[in-house]
Amino acid sequence: MKRVCIVGCGAIGSLYAAHLARVAEVWAFVRREDHARVLNRDGLRVSGKHEFHVSLRATTHADQLPECELGIVATKATQVEESISEIGHRFGQGTVISAQNGLGSEEIIAAHTRGQVIRGTTFMSGTKHSDTHVQFELDTATWIGPFEPRHTAYALVKEAADLITASGLKAEALQDARPAQWSKLIFNASVNGASALTGLPHSPHFADESQFSALGHLLHDLIEEGKRVAAAAGIQLHEDPWEMNRIGAMTNHPPSMLHDIRRQLATEVDFLSGAIAREAERVGALAPLHTAVYRLIKGREASWTFKDENHAVGP
Amino acid sequence: MKRVCIVGCGAIGSLYAAHLARVAEVWAFVRREDHARVLNRDGLRVSGKHEFHVSLRATTHADQLPECELGIVATKATQVEESISEIGHRFGQGTVISAQNGLGSEEIIAAHTRGQVIRGTTFMSGTKHSDTHVQFELDTATWIGPFEPRHTAYALVKEAADLITASGLKAEALQDARPAQWSKLIFNASVNGASALTGLPHSPHFADESQFSALGHLLHDLIEEGKRVAAAAGIQLHEDPWEMNRIGAMTNHPPSMLHDIRRQLATEVDFLSGAIAREAERVGALAPLHTAVYRLIKGREASWTFKDENHAVGP
Repeated sequence: MKRVCIVGCGAIGSLYAAHLARVAEVWAFVRREDHARVLNRDGLRVSGKHEFHVSLRATTHADQLPECELGIVATKATQVEESISEIGHRFGQGTVISAQNGLGSEEIIAAHTRGQVIRGTTFMSGTKHSDTHVQFELDTATWIGPFEPRHTAYALVKEAADLITASGLKAEALQDARPAQWSKLIFNASVNGASALTGLPHSPHFADESQFSALGHLLHDLIEEGKRVAAAAGIQLHEDPWEMNRIGAMTNHPPSMLHDIRRQLATEVDFLSGAIAREAERVGALAPLHTAVYRLIKGREASWTFKDENHAVGP
Repeated sequence: MKRVCIVGCGAIGSLYAAHLARVAEVWAFVRREDHARVLNRDGLRVSGKHEFHVSLRATTHADQLPECELGIVATKATQVEESISEIGHRFGQGTVISAQNGLGSEEIIAAHTRGQVIRGTTFMSGTKHSDTHVQFELDTATWIGPFEPRHTAYALVKEAADLITASGLKAEALQDARPAQWSKLIFNASVNGASALTGLPHSPHFADESQFSALGHLLHDLIEEGKRVAAAAGIQLHEDPWEMNRIGAMTNHPPSMLHDIRRQLATEVDFLSGAIAREAERVGALAPLHTAVYRLIKGREASWTFKDENHAVGP
C-alpha cells in the first residue's frame, strides 16, 4: 500500500485525503494542532456526491511525518512555500503534485524537494463544513502532467492518476499539463480579478456585453489578453476560457478571491493576474489589463492596514 | 445687486452660497425640505480659511425660485440632470456655471436652459459639518471659461469671475477652460478610480513605483493614457496630472469616490473614467485602462444590489 501525504486540508485537500485513504496510507499535514487532533480522533466524513467515512493520520510536525511516495499539495498558493519548505525532504524518493490555482507553485515545490514534481490543475469543488466533514460538490477531474524543468517521467504521472482514479476521484494523465493549467489560469485570473474588485460573485454580469459599460466586455478583453500571452509563451489552450466564463456566469458562485477579500486574507493574485503579467514580461507580450488588475488587488490588500484621515471631501 | 442661485449645497455649494451672499442676493436650491428650512432660518456659517456668517434664501420648489442672472450648479455630477431640469428656465436670460467633476455636465445643463453656459472647474475644498456650517479648507481657484457649443461670450465669463472674486473666493476667467478641466479630469479619473477599487485614500501608494506590483505604475499608466486621449481630442493640458498626483499622494485624503463607495452611493464614474473612455471612442484613441476602471466601478455599483449564494469554495 502506498503512503500518501496530503498537504493542507481545506475543502480540496480534505476531498483528496478522504478518498485516497480508501486505497492508500494517508497522512494529512496541517497547520493547526486542533485540526490534526480531530482528524486523528474522528477521521473524515464525505457527503454530497460521495458518502463515506475514513480514518487517517494527521500531524503538524514535520519530524512525525514518514517518507512518502506521493504528496499532493492542496494549500492555497500563498501557503505552499511555508508548508513544503518544512516537509519537502520527505518526498526525496517520491513524487509531489501541485494542486494550486495559477502558475508558480511547482517552482516553489521543486525548490524544496529532490523528488519528482507534477503539474496539477483541479476542477473539483466542495464545501468544508468542519475539520472532519467535507461536502463533495463538483466531481470534475484533476489534470496532471510532468513538470518540465524536472523532466518528470510520464509513467509516474500515469501511476499517480491511476491511484487518484482508484480512490473514486476523476484524474487524467497528460503528456503536457500546461494547456489545461493555462486554460484554468486565464479563466481564474480574469474571473477572480473582476470579482475581487467589483464584489460581484461569478454572475450574469460577467458575460453581459449589452452596453459599453458592461462588465462582460472587460472579462472578454482580459480573456483575450490572456490567450495572447499564452500563445506568445507557446501554449495551446485545452479549453476556451471564455466558454468557461460563460457557463460559470450562470452559477452566481463567489470565487475564492472574493472570499479572501471579504475576510481581508492575502489573495492568490501573485499566482493569477500577477503570473500572467510576469509571463507577459518574460515572453515580450503585452498584458496591460491583467497587470492593472494585479496592481489594484495588491493595493486592495495594502488598504487593510493603511489608515487614512477620513476627511469629508476630496478631489 | 445681482441675483444668484446656487444649485446644491454640499460643501462646495455651501462655500459658493455663503461667500456670494456677501455681494449678491443668493438663493440656494436644495433637495431636502429640512435643509431649505434651516438655511432660511439660521443662514450659513463659514469657518476655517474664512470666518463669517450670512443670511440667504433657500427653497426646494422650482416655482418659488425667481429669475436669476447667475447660477452655479454645485451638485454631484450624478444629480445635475435632476436639478437643472426643474429650474433651467429660471436662467433664460442669465448664465449658468457648471462646477462638477469630470466631463458632461455642461451638455446636460445646456439641454435644460436657453441661458449662457460656462465650463467651471474648482479646486476648492471644504468639510460640511452641518446644513448650516461649512469649514473652508483649500482656498484654491475656480477656473471658468466659455462652453463652446453655446458660444458663450468671454465678457460674461469675466463678469462671473469678477463677482466670485468680489465675494472672497478665487476665480480665474479663461478664454478656453478645457485645458484646466481636462487636467483635473485626468487626475480625478485616475485617482478616484484607483481609490474606489483599492479602498486606499490618496496615499503614498499612488506615487510608489518601486516594485513591479506597485500601484504608482498603474497611476502613471492611467495618467499617460488620459494625456494621449486629451492630445487626440486636441486639448493641451494646463497642468501635468502626474504632478498633481505626486503632490496629492502626500495628503492621505480619501477622494470623493471612495466616500461614495464606502456609503454605497452612485459614483461619478460616468463623468470621470467613463468620460475618458467615451471621448477616446469619439476621437479614435485607445483608453483600455480607463475603460477597464469604468467597467469595474459600474460592476462594483451593481454588486450592492446583487445577492449571491455565499458558498464556501469557488474556482
